[in-house]
Amino acid sequence: MKTLKVALKPSAKKKYARRAAAPGGRSPESSRIPLSEAINMVRSLDSKTSSYLQAMGEEMHALIRSLYPICRSITGNGVRETLRLINEQIPLQIFEVPSQTQVFDWTVPREWNIRDAYIKNRQGERLVDFQKCNLHVLGYSIPVHQEMTLDELKSHLFTLPEYPKYIPYRTSYYRESWGFCVSHEQWQELMARPDEVYEVCIDSSLESGSLTYAECFLPGQTEEEVLFSCQVCHPSLANDNLSGISLGVALAKTLEQSPRRYSYRFLFIPGIIGSITWLCLNESHLWRIKHGLVLNCVGDPGNIHYKKSRRGDAEIDQAITHVLKHHGADYSILDFYPYGYDERQYCSPGFNLPVGVLTRSQHGKFPEYHSSGDNLDFVRPEALADSYAVALLAIAVLEKNSVYINQNPKGEPLLSKRDLYSVRVGWLTDKDLEMAMLWVLNFSDGAHSLLDIAERSGIDFFRISLAAEKLKQANLLTGQQNGDK
Amino acid sequence: MKTLKVALKPSAKKKYARRAAAPGGRSPESSRIPLSEAINMVRSLDSKTSSYLQAMGEEMHALIRSLYPICRSITGNGVRETLRLINEQIPLQIFEVPSQTQVFDWTVPREWNIRDAYIKNRQGERLVDFQKCNLHVLGYSIPVHQEMTLDELKSHLFTLPEYPKYIPYRTSYYRESWGFCVSHEQWQELMARPDEVYEVCIDSSLESGSLTYAECFLPGQTEEEVLFSCQVCHPSLANDNLSGISLGVALAKTLEQSPRRYSYRFLFIPGIIGSITWLCLNESHLWRIKHGLVLNCVGDPGNIHYKKSRRGDAEIDQAITHVLKHHGADYSILDFYPYGYDERQYCSPGFNLPVGVLTRSQHGKFPEYHSSGDNLDFVRPEALADSYAVALLAIAVLEKNSVYINQNPKGEPLLSKRDLYSVRVGWLTDKDLEMAMLWVLNFSDGAHSLLDIAERSGIDFFRISLAAEKLKQANLLTGQQNGDK
Amino acid sequence: MKTLKVALKPSAKKKYARRAAAPGGRSPESSRIPLSEAINMVRSLDSKTSSYLQAMGEEMHALIRSLYPICRSITGNGVRETLRLINEQIPLQIFEVPSQTQVFDWTVPREWNIRDAYIKNRQGERLVDFQKCNLHVLGYSIPVHQEMTLDELKSHLFTLPEYPKYIPYRTSYYRESWGFCVSHEQWQELMARPDEVYEVCIDSSLESGSLTYAECFLPGQTEEEVLFSCQVCHPSLANDNLSGISLGVALAKTLEQSPRRYSYRFLFIPGIIGSITWLCLNESHLWRIKHGLVLNCVGDPGNIHYKKSRRGDAEIDQAITHVLKHHGADYSILDFYPYGYDERQYCSPGFNLPVGVLTRSQHGKFPEYHSSGDNLDFVRPEALADSYAVALLAIAVLEKNSVYINQNPKGEPLLSKRDLYSVRVGWLTDKDLEMAMLWVLNFSDGAHSLLDIAERSGIDFFRISLAAEKLKQANLLTGQQNGDK
Repeated sequence: MKTLKVALKPSAKKKYARRAAAPGGRSPESSRIPLSEAINMVRSLDSKTSSYLQAMGEEMHALIRSLYPICRSITGNGVRETLRLINEQIPLQIFEVPSQTQVFDWTVPREWNIRDAYIKNRQGERLVDFQKCNLHVLGYSIPVHQEMTLDELKSHLFTLPEYPKYIPYRTSYYRESWGFCVSHEQWQELMARPDEVYEVCIDSSLESGSLTYAECFLPGQTEEEVLFSCQVCHPSLANDNLSGISLGVALAKTLEQSPRRYSYRFLFIPGIIGSITWLCLNESHLWRIKHGLVLNCVGDPGNIHYKKSRRGDAEIDQAITHVLKHHGADYSILDFYPYGYDERQYCSPGFNLPVGVLTRSQHGKFPEYHSSGDNLDFVRPEALADSYAVALLAIAVLEKNSVYINQNPKGEPLLSKRDLYSVRVGWLTDKDLEMAMLWVLNFSDGAHSLLDIAERSGIDFFRISLAAEKLKQANLLTGQQNGDK
Repeated sequence: MKTLKVALKPSAKKKYARRAAAPGGRSPESSRIPLSEAINMVRSLDSKTSSYLQAMGEEMHALIRSLYPICRSITGNGVRETLRLINEQIPLQIFEVPSQTQVFDWTVPREWNIRDAYIKNRQGERLVDFQKCNLHVLGYSIPVHQEMTLDELKSHLFTLPEYPKYIPYRTSYYRESWGFCVSHEQWQELMARPDEVYEVCIDSSLESGSLTYAECFLPGQTEEEVLFSCQVCHPSLANDNLSGISLGVALAKTLEQSPRRYSYRFLFIPGIIGSITWLCLNESHLWRIKHGLVLNCVGDPGNIHYKKSRRGDAEIDQAITHVLKHHGADYSILDFYPYGYDERQYCSPGFNLPVGVLTRSQHGKFPEYHSSGDNLDFVRPEALADSYAVALLAIAVLEKNSVYINQNPKGEPLLSKRDLYSVRVGWLTDKDLEMAMLWVLNFSDGAHSLLDIAERSGIDFFRISLAAEKLKQANLLTGQQNGDK
Repeated sequence: MKTLKVALKPSAKKKYARRAAAPGGRSPESSRIPLSEAINMVRSLDSKTSSYLQAMGEEMHALIRSLYPICRSITGNGVRETLRLINEQIPLQIFEVPSQTQVFDWTVPREWNIRDAYIKNRQGERLVDFQKCNLHVLGYSIPVHQEMTLDELKSHLFTLPEYPKYIPYRTSYYRESWGFCVSHEQWQELMARPDEVYEVCIDSSLESGSLTYAECFLPGQTEEEVLFSCQVCHPSLANDNLSGISLGVALAKTLEQSPRRYSYRFLFIPGIIGSITWLCLNESHLWRIKHGLVLNCVGDPGNIHYKKSRRGDAEIDQAITHVLKHHGADYSILDFYPYGYDERQYCSPGFNLPVGVLTRSQHGKFPEYHSSGDNLDFVRPEALADSYAVALLAIAVLEKNSVYINQNPKGEPLLSKRDLYSVRVGWLTDKDLEMAMLWVLNFSDGAHSLLDIAERSGIDFFRISLAAEKLKQANLLTGQQNGDK
């Protein structure tokens, strides 16, 4: 296999060149504060928190609004324009993978682009108009331009009878086809005029080109990586793709400001073919991925659903479960199943990466799913901010989780002679912290990580972590900078 | 130890010679169809199923009726006559093991036969008559013929005061004794005449002879065996022995018509001493037994109770639990306990064979247990057929269960290019089968059998198995013909 | 380290010399019967049991009454006087460890003694009087004698506002201080006279001396030990220390009369510093400790709470859980947490000894905790006797628990030929014992202890143990005198 990892073309390089840092020229952004500050914001319970989270939600929603109009697909200029806008926020490296490239069992498809599409009646009125809503066109429709009767047109029309006001979202990537998606109400109007003749036009192209994806890589102290995977292939669907992008961007902006133990890699890729392509191009480096999350559908008002990695007991599974348990809102933890988003590829048996999925409402289980109902009103700033908070806390757990060794394992150490007995820190009472210290001392035997201790004690990880910090300062713990067991 | 495995005597050989195949001369039997057809019959939900199962139940009940009148015990001609009738249905090999043969800690007892027994009053009326019900005689009663007063007779009478209409079933194999079992109502009538003198007669013999048992062996592709164990030692008790025999015979008839992965061995043996004898004679071959079931009390209208093997996680335990979970009716799964039927011997610690017990109502827990209430009305064709269905489905699971290896473990394979994406098979929708294929692909990593995958996914085994079949045809799976883990 | 284990000074040796056996001179005591008899007493359900337990409870309560007036602390003459009284009941060896001895991370503190203390008003009335209640003085108060205003005195007064009638129990071992503990009502009276001037006196001494503790060691057939740990550092608190001492003494008295498989070691030590000192002095012998229990708060009327060892699955955890399950009363089993009594030291990660905690109400969870409410009325003879019964049964389980090997593992042995089939023993029916024998035979495979078999079968350990005894007599079992797995 040669040059699968395609270098950017000179022109593209210029276009998508690494964003120059321009702090002066940018408006203040909530997300652009260091992790430790963001964590404090998210964890404290005062009015500062709520105004921070409100601003975060607005910032994320603004990005969604800017990306919403673009007609994306698994290839094409819509993806490129999307990545250009993301690149205005975080540093991206763009990759172009030529059509027909073999990636494991799959082949990179031809590149699809579309300029216009409509169904006109005899009067020349656009009854169905791509310019009004890009969901109207079946994704990957081949070009068509001809007059036809309703009878000829009928089999190319798709509707959602259960939700007659919504335009469905449909694609046909791997079988050549064309079609229009319309609301069931529109369809009924068309059906009411069986004798009409229509001008049907899809001004698209399906030609050799490339598949486009991007990475935002933030190096850390170690080359061990945390992977975040966001889809960029859906057209105007706000929750099911754009919310995931907005969360990825917000996390990257926060992490960019911070010292990082782990390296972080954010992928902005088309669904399925994108993750398969990325896995194929990066197979030899996958050992670096210690934790991962697929981000999608994180902006709707439903409760958080976390779907565990195939391993089921990965540290990311433990971290998110812990965070949600202490976060206050209702949530669901789901076992892995081989259906859903790109975790299907990351967790295929040949890789079995420790990658879970963070969503709010589950795919296929809300009425707006894959339809025009999944619009800018469906995603809420407060839900986006809440998803950001949970992901951020999980990142903080991963960053701080370690296995420590109690240096005074025979009996308890005398805390009072080290001034550790009546220490009050921030929101913690003496008793709180003393209890956390006893837990950390007793279970820091080389077999339990701080997260294990937090789980076993029922005490919030951050209190446990703070206790460990105090004990480390008093030379009662030595650290292994390694959360793996 | 020499010639423990006693060859049939010439006369017996002739008598019990392998039944010649006589398809023309036999009436059509529901059970005599191949396994795959029987499974389809049992699994589809249309009227064909219900009429198939109705016919099966009638066929099984008919065998019970033909065996019911015979007076069986752990040895003697009643067992031989029983085996002769079974041999009319399936090919048997008969074994005669001489009295006094040492089998592990036990000794094969003398052979018991009985011709007649009664209690007559002074008028010569048979107040208690073996000819009317063979339960009247305490099993293994020594011969007696004498006049005696009620006082002398009393200590030889056994009743069930809780169920005054039922004649109890009692035996005294290992302590020489004689007695009569009568209903409590009969007993009260006898007690009402304290001055009567009775002629008491038991025309039995207890002499050196042999213990008789039989095997029906159906060789398969491998020498690995599935063992079914049926008791043949109870006299006129329909559920507690005969129902188990009828189920063993029905399963053997169905399996006889089919290609078989496993070899199948059906034992028709007296309780306890029979299984101990068989284990002793076959000790060096026990490694072949991969799965086993004791069949008994499978004809009453109660819910199915499955008692797990001592191992608790044997494949047979997993298979029956799975089948019952998807079967629709209420059921109970019981942990192993060292009491009950011949599993006590198969699961003794020196063997620890993977043998479970299939029953409906549990021994000792229904009023009719070990009494004349366990008669031909107590066993129901529909219950017999339902037990047959469950056992058959479990056999089918064992036959089809395997560990496969996904040949495209890195990412998902592209199903559509293999025409696997929109395949509809029989009762399955595309979506059903696609989902099953994704589960099989993801978990066919060498560590999960199809049955494991069915359990983990919550999908019925047969759908998972069908998906595996499709994937194998598309070269996406290679099989290990081995369900053991 | 030299002579940490301090020999008794000649005078002390005389004073605390091993009690000469004086059976004639002592009143009959309920606890002074062999273990096997005591067990039978505790297990049978007749009137003998209830009168035995009533007498036991009275005997234990009597010891508490004799110890209650003494002012104890972690060092000093109160501890010595306490040990002298205990030594009148059971043979003790007393240890004196000099002040300033380094024990792991801790230092043995100076010895504290107190003779008198009071707060007098101008009229010379003792408003607060140590002679009335030794809780009035903050433990380890340095000497003070001066006149002072209420304002000066105020910061040295401690109360329990939630329970205004109780005098709290407070200490300041590791920070030099002095103070008085008074009921909140007393405090309010003092506060009502802001202009009073007080004579404040604490006639105490805090000087170099030693820390005193004792062991009662009862050697058994093996040098493997069961450890019981009782605190002797609390002043007049009946439940929180004295009840534990009384239980330790009662168990030692019973065990002293019996042949013992294990050796038993009863520690009477001050809390925390005592166990740390003992662990430090005995580090090289800790491998002998196979099981252990901390005894405290065992006299109040609450339900039993058993806190498991850090291991969570130690044999002592299994034994007490089993005993409580079959004991009849409500109870709670708690997972280990690194807070509470001396288990904090025994279960520190450097030792991780199999030591659990037997209490009734939990520390800190009853209103009387650490206050004058924890008095002689709060501990009840019947509660003490019940705690004794549970501890005794657990000891009996440990003594009798073993792994046996079935000598006839292939099939069941023929019980009737060994006269085991219809054996009725004491409170057991034939059926009871037969079933227990079948369980023991089936699971005595070298991998299951009798306690494991009791748990798995749901049958009481003592029935299982009796069945094993019968089978051993019949040569059907060989024993490994080893309950460890």
